[in-house]
Amino acid sequence: MALLTAITGPRDLDGLSPEQLEQLAGEVREFLVDSVAKTGGHLGPNLGVVELTIALHRVFESPRDKVLFDTGHQSYVHKLLTGRQDFSRLRAKGGLSGYPSRAESEHDVIENSHASTVLGWADGIAKANEVRRTGDHVVAVIGDGALTGGMAWEALNNIAAAKDRPLVIVVNDNERSYAPTIGGLADHLATLRTTDGYERFLARGKEVLNRTPMVGKPLYETLHGAKKGLKDLVAPQGMFEDLGLKYVGPIDGHDLEALEFALQRAKRFGGPVIVHCITEKGRGYQPALEDEADRFHGIGVIHPDTGLPVKSSGADWTSVFGEEMVELGREREDVVALTAAMMRPTGLHKFAEKFPDRVYDVGIAEQHAATSAAGLATGGLHPVFAVYATFLNRAFDQVLMDVALHRCGVTFVLDRAGVTGSDGASHNGMWDMSVLQCVPGLRLAAPRDADQLRAQLREAVAVDDAPTVVRYSKGAVGPAVPAVRRIGGMDVLREAGDDDRPDVLLVSVGALAPMCLDVAQLLEKQGISTTVVDPRWVKPVDPELPSLAGIHRVVVTVEDNSRAGGVGSAVAQALRDAEVDVPLRDFGIPPRFLDHASRGEVLGEIGLTAPDIARQVTGLVARLDGQLETAAAEVAHD
Amino acid sequence: MALLTAITGPRDLDGLSPEQLEQLAGEVREFLVDSVAKTGGHLGPNLGVVELTIALHRVFESPRDKVLFDTGHQSYVHKLLTGRQDFSRLRAKGGLSGYPSRAESEHDVIENSHASTVLGWADGIAKANEVRRTGDHVVAVIGDGALTGGMAWEALNNIAAAKDRPLVIVVNDNERSYAPTIGGLADHLATLRTTDGYERFLARGKEVLNRTPMVGKPLYETLHGAKKGLKDLVAPQGMFEDLGLKYVGPIDGHDLEALEFALQRAKRFGGPVIVHCITEKGRGYQPALEDEADRFHGIGVIHPDTGLPVKSSGADWTSVFGEEMVELGREREDVVALTAAMMRPTGLHKFAEKFPDRVYDVGIAEQHAATSAAGLATGGLHPVFAVYATFLNRAFDQVLMDVALHRCGVTFVLDRAGVTGSDGASHNGMWDMSVLQCVPGLRLAAPRDADQLRAQLREAVAVDDAPTVVRYSKGAVGPAVPAVRRIGGMDVLREAGDDDRPDVLLVSVGALAPMCLDVAQLLEKQGISTTVVDPRWVKPVDPELPSLAGIHRVVVTVEDNSRAGGVGSAVAQALRDAEVDVPLRDFGIPPRFLDHASRGEVLGEIGLTAPDIARQVTGLVARLDGQLETAAAEVAHD
Repeated sequence: MALLTAITGPRDLDGLSPEQLEQLAGEVREFLVDSVAKTGGHLGPNLGVVELTIALHRVFESPRDKVLFDTGHQSYVHKLLTGRQDFSRLRAKGGLSGYPSRAESEHDVIENSHASTVLGWADGIAKANEVRRTGDHVVAVIGDGALTGGMAWEALNNIAAAKDRPLVIVVNDNERSYAPTIGGLADHLATLRTTDGYERFLARGKEVLNRTPMVGKPLYETLHGAKKGLKDLVAPQGMFEDLGLKYVGPIDGHDLEALEFALQRAKRFGGPVIVHCITEKGRGYQPALEDEADRFHGIGVIHPDTGLPVKSSGADWTSVFGEEMVELGREREDVVALTAAMMRPTGLHKFAEKFPDRVYDVGIAEQHAATSAAGLATGGLHPVFAVYATFLNRAFDQVLMDVALHRCGVTFVLDRAGVTGSDGASHNGMWDMSVLQCVPGLRLAAPRDADQLRAQLREAVAVDDAPTVVRYSKGAVGPAVPAVRRIGGMDVLREAGDDDRPDVLLVSVGALAPMCLDVAQLLEKQGISTTVVDPRWVKPVDPELPSLAGIHRVVVTVEDNSRAGGVGSAVAQALRDAEVDVPLRDFGIPPRFLDHASRGEVLGEIGLTAPDIARQVTGLVARLDGQLETAAAEVAHD
Repeated sequence: MALLTAITGPRDLDGLSPEQLEQLAGEVREFLVDSVAKTGGHLGPNLGVVELTIALHRVFESPRDKVLFDTGHQSYVHKLLTGRQDFSRLRAKGGLSGYPSRAESEHDVIENSHASTVLGWADGIAKANEVRRTGDHVVAVIGDGALTGGMAWEALNNIAAAKDRPLVIVVNDNERSYAPTIGGLADHLATLRTTDGYERFLARGKEVLNRTPMVGKPLYETLHGAKKGLKDLVAPQGMFEDLGLKYVGPIDGHDLEALEFALQRAKRFGGPVIVHCITEKGRGYQPALEDEADRFHGIGVIHPDTGLPVKSSGADWTSVFGEEMVELGREREDVVALTAAMMRPTGLHKFAEKFPDRVYDVGIAEQHAATSAAGLATGGLHPVFAVYATFLNRAFDQVLMDVALHRCGVTFVLDRAGVTGSDGASHNGMWDMSVLQCVPGLRLAAPRDADQLRAQLREAVAVDDAPTVVRYSKGAVGPAVPAVRRIGGMDVLREAGDDDRPDVLLVSVGALAPMCLDVAQLLEKQGISTTVVDPRWVKPVDPELPSLAGIHRVVVTVEDNSRAGGVGSAVAQALRDAEVDVPLRDFGIPPRFLDHASRGEVLGEIGLTAPDIARQVTGLVARLDGQLETAAAEVAHD
C-alpha cells in the first residue's frame, strides 16, 4: 500500500507514472476487498470505478471543479483519493459515511443516496458557474441503471438545450445497477457496447486524435466527424445525439490512458458531452465477478477470500414477505408484482421465479411503478409494488393522483421502513407514515411480527378500491408478539389490569411492540397502570381508538417514523375530533436528518428506548397528578 | 350542429363520409369556441385535437379499447363524441368536469390532470391486457411538452422493452405545451417536423403503403423500411428507434384520412408504436392562433369574436409575486428563477424579460427544477422555483433529499395553493402544508395579503441554508389585513380585549385571515372572547405560540389545506411538546378529493366558512364550561 497511503489529495496523483497508477489501482482494490469485508459496505460498485475515479481526479481539479457521483455508494475510491483512508469504522457511528458527506470533505457534494439525481445537480452547478463566470468544471458520474430514472431524463433534456454550457457526463456502464438494467435504454446501451466495430473504432479514434492538434472544440469536432464517418462500423449514438448531446465512447473504463484521453477532451469541449465508459462491477474480485445475483453490490461482513458471509442471518422481514407473495401468487392469478430494479433486495425474486409473466422490473423508476400499477389495477389485476420505504417518496404524486384519486387497488410494500442506521440520512424510511397520511382513502398497516406481516399483506391485497401500504423494518424479524384480545381492528397486547381508569394507553406501532411492552413493565413498577395496544392499521385511525383512549388518563404513541405529521399526530387528531381531550404524548423520530450509526445507536440517541420513554411518561403522569390536586384545591377555594 | 348533436357515442362516427367528418370537425370547433367563451376552460388544446380525436374514436373501440389522454384538458372533443354535449356548466358545480371523469362516462380513464402520466397508465393497462389475454387495445395521447416529464421517459423505457405488447402512443406535437417546449427533445422533434423531405415523405409513404397488402406487421415493416430508405430525405427518428420503439410520422394532425391510416396500422402492428402527429393549438380560431403568449390555453369567460376577456381581473397573488421578483432581481444578482413550463402562469415572465440570463424554464420537470435548484444554490446562487402548489408533489423527494438534506437556500413559491375549485380534484393545492411538515429545516410562509407576500418573499430569499416556501391562493388578492402587534414572528390581528384568560386563540393561516376575523366577530356576539393571530411562518411553529395558547381556554386553527398532518397538527404537537394541554380544534380540508365547483362553493361544502366554524367553536366552549362545572361538582363531592 506504499502508493495509496502516500496520497493525501487528488494533486498527489499528478506526478505518478502510468506504471505507478496501475499499481495504485491494484492497491486500491486490495484495500477495498480487505476493508469492506471487515466492515460491510458497497463492494462491487467501487471495484468497478477504480481507474475511472483516478482518471477523474487527474483530469479535474476538485474541489474547484465539482466531481459528482450518483448514488454515492460508488464514492469509496474517491474517498481514498481525497484524504480519507481510515475505513475501519465505515458506516459506523463516528466513522466514515458510506456515501459522500460534506461534513467529511470539501471534495464531497451530493449526500443523497437516491439514484438519478446527479445530472440535475450538475446542471444546476453548471448554470451557476455560467452566471458567476467562474470557469470551473462539472463532471457527473452516473450508472447506466440510474439513467432509467425519470429525473435523469429531465436533466439530460435540459443539459442538451444549452450547447455551450460545459458539463461532462460520465456514463458508468456496467450493464447492471443493482440487477441487470432493463428497458429500451439498456438495449440501446448494449448495442453501443457490443457492436463489432467497438475495438476497431477505439483504435481508429485514437489514431485520428493523435494526428490532430489539441485545440479543444475543433479537435472534438474532428473526433465527432471521425465517428460519423465510421457510422457503419460502430453502433448509432443516435439517442444522445438526437438530443443534441455530444457522445464519446465507448471507452474501456479500466484503461487509464483511454479514460484520461477522453476526459481531457470532454473537459475542453466547452459544451455538454457524454463519455460512455464500460466498466466491470466487482472488477478484480473473483467472488463478485462470478455472482450473477449481484450479492456483492452491498455486503455485510464477509470472508474476503470466499466472499461468504461471516454470520448467517435469521429470518428477516424481507423473506417473510417474499414467501408470502409466492403463496398469494398461487392462490390468486390476478396478483402481479413490481419492483424498481430491486428484485432480490425486496424479496420478490421468489415470486419472479414462480410467476415470471406476472412480475415487472421497471428500472429505477418509482414513479412509473406507481402509475403503471394504477393502470394494472384498472386493467383488472392487483399489483403489489415492493420498494424501500425511503424510495417511495419519489412516487408520492403518483400514489396520490394516479392510485388514490382513481381508487385503484394497489398494494405498496415498504421494506426498510423506520431507522435503518448505517446507510445514513437518506436511507432511513422515516417519512412514509407522515407523507401518506394525507392521501385520501389510503390504508396503512405496520405489522409487528412475521405472523402479522403475512396476515396484513393478505388484508391489504384483499382491498380492491384503494391503495394499501404494508411497512416493516430492515433486518431480522423478532419473535411473535401475541395479542390478548382484539378491539375493532386493534390488538391489545397487554391489559392494564382491572383498574377502572387505567393511567396510560400506549399505542405501539409495528416492530416497536416488544419495546413498548418493556415501557409498560417499567411504568407498572412506578405504579402506573398501562394498556398496550397495536392498532395494526395505523391509517385510518381505528374508530374504536378514541373511546379506548377516553378511559385512560394519558395516551402515548410510539412510532419508528418522523414525529412530524406521523401516527401520533393522526391519533391526536382523531381524539380531538371525537372530543376526547385526554393529554397525549407522541414519541417518534425528531424532525431532523439522522447521521449514520447502528439502528440501536440511533434509537438511543433520539430517545426511542424503553427507559427514555418510561421516564418521560412517568414525569407526565406525576405532573397530571399535581395538576389535579391544584385544580381540586382551586375549585374548593372558589 | 346537425351532425354533432346526432352523435351519442363513438360508433355513430362509423357511418360518416369523409365530407361529413370534415363538417363534423367544423361543428365541433364552432361549438367549442362558442361554449368555452361562455364558461371559460381550456380552448387552445382542444381546438388542436378535433380531427385526432375523431380518428381515434373511429379506429379504436372505446370503452373496450382504452383511449387515454395526458393532462385531460384536451378531452373536450372526446367528451362531445362520447355522449356529453351539455357544456353549459363546464367546470361548475354539478356540470361537466374540465377533465375526464370516471363518474361521467365509461369512456374516461385518467382523471389526474398532472402531466406526463399517460404512458405509465397505458403501460399498466397493456400489461393487464396481456396477462388477462383480452386482446383489447390501448392508445395514449401525449403532448410534446409532456414528454419532457421524467415519468414519460420511465414509461417509454418500459414500453420499449416489450417488443410484442401492443400499445399505441400518439405524440400530439403542437410545438408548445403551455409555452414553447424547451430542451433537447424539443429540438429533436423540431428536426422531425421541419425537414424538407416531410411532405415528400408523406406522399411517398402513402404510395408504398397503398401498394402493400394490409397484413399488419409486415406492412408496418415495409413502411419502416421505406422510411429507412428515405433516411437522407427525412430526419432521423433515431431517438425513439434507438429505444426500440417503432416510429410513424410525422402525420398531419388535421388530415383525417392520414390520421386514420396511421392509427389503423399502428393498432394492427402488435407492439409498441409511436405515431407522431403535428397539430396546431387553437386551430380554426384566429385570436388563439395569433396569440404568442398562449393565453388561450386556458381561458376565463371571453368574447368569442375577439377573444378578449369579458371582465378584467384586479390585482392577483401571481402578479404581486411577479413584480416583487423583478425588484429582487434588481437588488440581488444572485437571485435566479425557475419554472416548469409555466413562465406566464406563475408570473415569472416579467423577471424573464428583465433578466433573461437568470431564468430557467426546465420543461414539465418539477423534479429537475428542485434538484437543479440545489445545484444552483451549491454554486452560489439563490434560486426561486415558482410552481403550482399541487405540482410540487412531483418533487417531494428532491425537496427533501436534495434541497433540505444539503441545507440549500432554495425558495419554492407555491401558487394556486389551497382550494382552487373549478379545475377539480387534482388541481387543488391542498397537500403542501402537510407533506412539507416532515422536511427538516424547511420554513414555510403563508402570507395573508399582498404586503405580506412581498415581505415574506424577501424573508424567504434571505435564508441561505435551508429550503423556504411561500404559498398563496389562486386569483385576486384581498385588501390588506393590518396587524395590531407582533409577538415573536407572529402578527396579532385582533386582541381578545383585556380579559385575563380569553376564551379562544384563533390561529389563522394565510388568505383566510378576513374569514377568521369574521369568526371572531361571530364568537364575540356569543360572549366568547377571541384573539386572532397570523403566525405568518407556519413551519416551524413559532416558539411564542404555545405560551400565547396557554393563556387561552381553547385553540382553534384554520387552514386552507388538508387537515391530515397540516398546520393544525403541527400546532397541536408544539403545544403537547410545551406541555400546554389546552384543547385544540383544527379546521381545514377533510381528507378526501374535492369535486369541481367554485372555490366558494367548495369552502361552503367542507365547512370552511365563518358561520360554520363559529358554530362549532361555540359548541366546544359551551361543552368546556359544562365540563368545568361537572369537575367542580365532582371535586366538591370527593
